[in-house]
Amino acid sequence: MDPSQVSVPLLKDLTIDNITENVHAINSQCPDSRLKYLLERLVSHVHDFARETRLSTNEWMTAINFLTAVGKICSDVRQEFILLSDVIGLSLLVDSIDHPKPSSSTEGTVLGPFHTHDAETTDNGGVISHDPTGTPCLVLCTVKDTSGNPISGVKIDVWETDSKGKYDVQYEGRTQPDGRAVLESDNEGVFWFKAIVPVPYPIPHDGPVGKLLMLLKRHPYRPSHMHFMFEKEGFDHLITALYLRGDPYETSDAVFGVKETLLVDLGSADAEQARKYEVEEGGKLMTYDFVLVSDSEAKELREKEAMKAMESLGRKMKLYQGLPIPDVD
Amino acid sequence: MDPSQVSVPLLKDLTIDNITENVHAINSQCPDSRLKYLLERLVSHVHDFARETRLSTNEWMTAINFLTAVGKICSDVRQEFILLSDVIGLSLLVDSIDHPKPSSSTEGTVLGPFHTHDAETTDNGGVISHDPTGTPCLVLCTVKDTSGNPISGVKIDVWETDSKGKYDVQYEGRTQPDGRAVLESDNEGVFWFKAIVPVPYPIPHDGPVGKLLMLLKRHPYRPSHMHFMFEKEGFDHLITALYLRGDPYETSDAVFGVKETLLVDLGSADAEQARKYEVEEGGKLMTYDFVLVSDSEAKELREKEAMKAMESLGRKMKLYQGLPIPDVD
Repeated sequence: MDPSQVSVPLLKDLTIDNITENVHAINSQCPDSRLKYLLERLVSHVHDFARETRLSTNEWMTAINFLTAVGKICSDVRQEFILLSDVIGLSLLVDSIDHPKPSSSTEGTVLGPFHTHDAETTDNGGVISHDPTGTPCLVLCTVKDTSGNPISGVKIDVWETDSKGKYDVQYEGRTQPDGRAVLESDNEGVFWFKAIVPVPYPIPHDGPVGKLLMLLKRHPYRPSHMHFMFEKEGFDHLITALYLRGDPYETSDAVFGVKETLLVDLGSADAEQARKYEVEEGGKLMTYDFVLVSDSEAKELREKEAMKAMESLGRKMKLYQGLPIPDVD
Repeated sequence: MDPSQVSVPLLKDLTIDNITENVHAINSQCPDSRLKYLLERLVSHVHDFARETRLSTNEWMTAINFLTAVGKICSDVRQEFILLSDVIGLSLLVDSIDHPKPSSSTEGTVLGPFHTHDAETTDNGGVISHDPTGTPCLVLCTVKDTSGNPISGVKIDVWETDSKGKYDVQYEGRTQPDGRAVLESDNEGVFWFKAIVPVPYPIPHDGPVGKLLMLLKRHPYRPSHMHFMFEKEGFDHLITALYLRGDPYETSDAVFGVKETLLVDLGSADAEQARKYEVEEGGKLMTYDFVLVSDSEAKELREKEAMKAMESLGRKMKLYQGLPIPDVD
């Protein structure tokens, strides 16, 4: 690039006090106003962090090495940066911001790093877990809109660990998916499948994120839960999970995902259910009525909350593709 | 870990508004008060960043993928996280905080990702670059303390690119170091060596950091410079560089390293110098008088500036191993 084309301020003699405004100045050439705003806030926060902590060169190098190790351990079946985001509460926060829920709808929670795109499509009634030592559990749910109308044809991803607390992808030599499936709600908005009772498990803690948790004296456990993801044109994507009430880790989830409204008590299948769904009478039963928000409801709420947050920060902003950018004339 | 041993608040129903205080609460079990403070500030800034930008799930995933790519491209000879830190001005900031300089001493600047630990020890007068197409340059310097006394026995690391703007480690199949050496100052605090005239070069921009610079419409160039690092017991580590005045990128360095006091004009060797240092008369000559700060001067200044910064932030802090931590009774 021809340096004479660079219309930036003279970057020289940068100090603790003037480096931030100068980085902003050179980044202000960015033609994408959303990216420019993201970078402006990011650089401000990173610099303030260093100034407020008087970050030492040794600590900086420790952070560089930590982030490098986080990247290095990522693979097709392990996403350590998502794990890092999860354990610092960022994942829960971003989901809450991006998927606001009216009180009548099902709350969201963290996606986690174990969703895959290779789960098999299963008819209602399908067996999603083939772990013989798991306790069988019939899962019987409905999915409706906020007015109480059943929604048919919703694509539902479900995934859970085996009875040892491990997802299929955590086993070397995995040849096919297990403990996961893709279902579709029927005309009554009903979907059901045969799974196993979820168990608590530690998030992968043999890597850099596990070391960080150890230094913080935090345990790596998640309470027993089953993941659900709902997709249908016209409805806001819902990433959520159901948690077993009374789990020992119910109030200390390593990734901050538990919500009161997502806690369930397991029931047992009565004679009629046993016959209808072909399970043992008295076997474990998990039921839940999910409520999806329409895209337009979610968009309206998201934008209203975004502008409210911007106002409370005293920033003059406008929305661009639903996301705030500075409102400069 | 036995969950009954976890003395944390009940983490449930976490929202945009209460997630931060709850993450702080669970991290507050950390026995290392400096790490606890670093995490507290880090989590606050990361969360505020997400709240202030209303970070979307898509943007979050883009960031996760970006950081993963930054980690993946790191190798024994490439440190993309340092590069990222450099281009957002963090490296310059951390160096300024950790190595404060009294006005009588030589300023520091960014280390960059190309220092290695395998440079050969060279006697004064040694040839550090074997690039036949480089323009030979005699480098003749002194190193003194802030009272003007020469310092002997200082270990000096120097490194520069070849005439094509590439460091040795950027070539595949590198078998031995070149364009770098470790020297020692003599009894008069003098050190000299035979190098080549530095040239401008782009930082590695074929990776994720290069892509970011392109999105920001920033060029990846650094002005011509030669790196120097000084180490001697009792003196604050000095990481610095000399820049050629008048370089086309003098005021738009991609990593914000240029300082007025570190700009040099190349001279030419006179007849006596040519004879004494065994170079061609009229050949390029770079001279500089470096001034090191003693450990105790640096420590005093660092701690004074840290406490001043904490006071201006209104934080009640104390120093622990020279770094601020909250002063809680």
